[in-house]
Amino acid sequence: METIKVIKIGGNVVDNPDALARFVNDFVKLPGKKILVHGGGKEATRMSARLDIPTTMIEGRRVTTRETLDVVTMVYAGLVNKRIVSMLQAAGCNAIGLTGADGNAITATRRKPKPIDYGFVGDIKPEGVNSSLIASLLEAGITPVYCAITHDGNGTLLNCNADTIASSVAIGASRVAPAELIFCFEQPGVMEDLDRPDSLISLITPDIYSDLRARNIVNKGMIPKIDNAFAAIDAGVSSVTIKHSDALTTDRGTVIRK
Amino acid sequence: METIKVIKIGGNVVDNPDALARFVNDFVKLPGKKILVHGGGKEATRMSARLDIPTTMIEGRRVTTRETLDVVTMVYAGLVNKRIVSMLQAAGCNAIGLTGADGNAITATRRKPKPIDYGFVGDIKPEGVNSSLIASLLEAGITPVYCAITHDGNGTLLNCNADTIASSVAIGASRVAPAELIFCFEQPGVMEDLDRPDSLISLITPDIYSDLRARNIVNKGMIPKIDNAFAAIDAGVSSVTIKHSDALTTDRGTVIRK
Repeated sequence: METIKVIKIGGNVVDNPDALARFVNDFVKLPGKKILVHGGGKEATRMSARLDIPTTMIEGRRVTTRETLDVVTMVYAGLVNKRIVSMLQAAGCNAIGLTGADGNAITATRRKPKPIDYGFVGDIKPEGVNSSLIASLLEAGITPVYCAITHDGNGTLLNCNADTIASSVAIGASRVAPAELIFCFEQPGVMEDLDRPDSLISLITPDIYSDLRARNIVNKGMIPKIDNAFAAIDAGVSSVTIKHSDALTTDRGTVIRK
Repeated sequence: METIKVIKIGGNVVDNPDALARFVNDFVKLPGKKILVHGGGKEATRMSARLDIPTTMIEGRRVTTRETLDVVTMVYAGLVNKRIVSMLQAAGCNAIGLTGADGNAITATRRKPKPIDYGFVGDIKPEGVNSSLIASLLEAGITPVYCAITHDGNGTLLNCNADTIASSVAIGASRVAPAELIFCFEQPGVMEDLDRPDSLISLITPDIYSDLRARNIVNKGMIPKIDNAFAAIDAGVSSVTIKHSDALTTDRGTVIRK
């Protein structure tokens, strides 16, 4: 099969109707087989507040009580996922929304409560992604749209990080065909200097990465993203691109590969 | 293809954890190709109340403002659909949850605002159900689980009545293979006398129905259900059964056929 592109959008795109409409328009234009993964944390936090459910974040991860699990299931799998799927359908892309439970798309294991009890939060094992479902949907001309809800296979839904879903799905897709992973966010990519738009680093290989880190150039927030990108590449993904959500159909962005 | 069973459960089953668990267990045991359609109105009404969104029902139908549409999308497509799909997966049934937008499963037309403005409410045309999606999912061993949200194909989600979704899906399935439609609710079926459990009418044909109505036996609330059942049969469905949600794997119930 031809290359599969796995594209992830975060809360900043999902939460901005204009940015989302522009992104959907570009996503539909993108040639070839593709998969979308989306976040939606900001809307979940707002809905929690409206329902008087406290939001607790530890190290950027949402502590997911039973009540919070209901909220993220409603917001990610319901409100946000179906909004995106209906927009894609209107733009001529035959999308189908998925949690990990749908078609047994992704199974996860509930994270142990030590050292931090995150509640109903799941970790995905490499074999947890259903590659044959990916293959059969793509072969049928259907574009899977994953939200960040998985299940444990025993009837419990689990909240996951959308970046992790995207990496795991890309690794799963790489067992079907060559797979590229693209993270869209509100920056043009990895920058030498965040204040200088012309300082975009267009390519990061392991050698270039060592050099950048030795020169202390990489922004601290980018280090886990780049480390995760190399981990995905080690697990079978061809390349990982970090780019602005408005630059999907352009070459502009940072490509990470070996 | 072998007969397809389309089974509908309403709010009374969805809303009762024990009844739902018993139903899921029976549904999984049911041999052959099958499709589930579920309601969830009670939970939507509760969620609306928690969010201070008024619920207005006219002739049993929910008036669906933009805010109400968000609530029913969250509750039906998110909370309820994913709960049922994860329970089915745990019981060994490879279920996939669908709104009308997913895989373009069902397109609907927004109802005209006269004589009553129901807001974002959709009516399904006979050709609105995607029969080839039904065929390909069932052939792949996947059980579709429809909630009562559709789309207009232009990016707008629409609220539908779950009984209508069930009838429409059964008619759509009948273009793939013989299709039986089964409505599960909290009564054993159509009764001659609601106070006499032994008065269950096991078969209704057009002749029997004329006779029952002439004798003024059929409960008023049942008349639209039976009329809709005959309409589904006229449109290609083999038979319609009305039975208790605990009687799915038994012969007990009212079979309506020509």
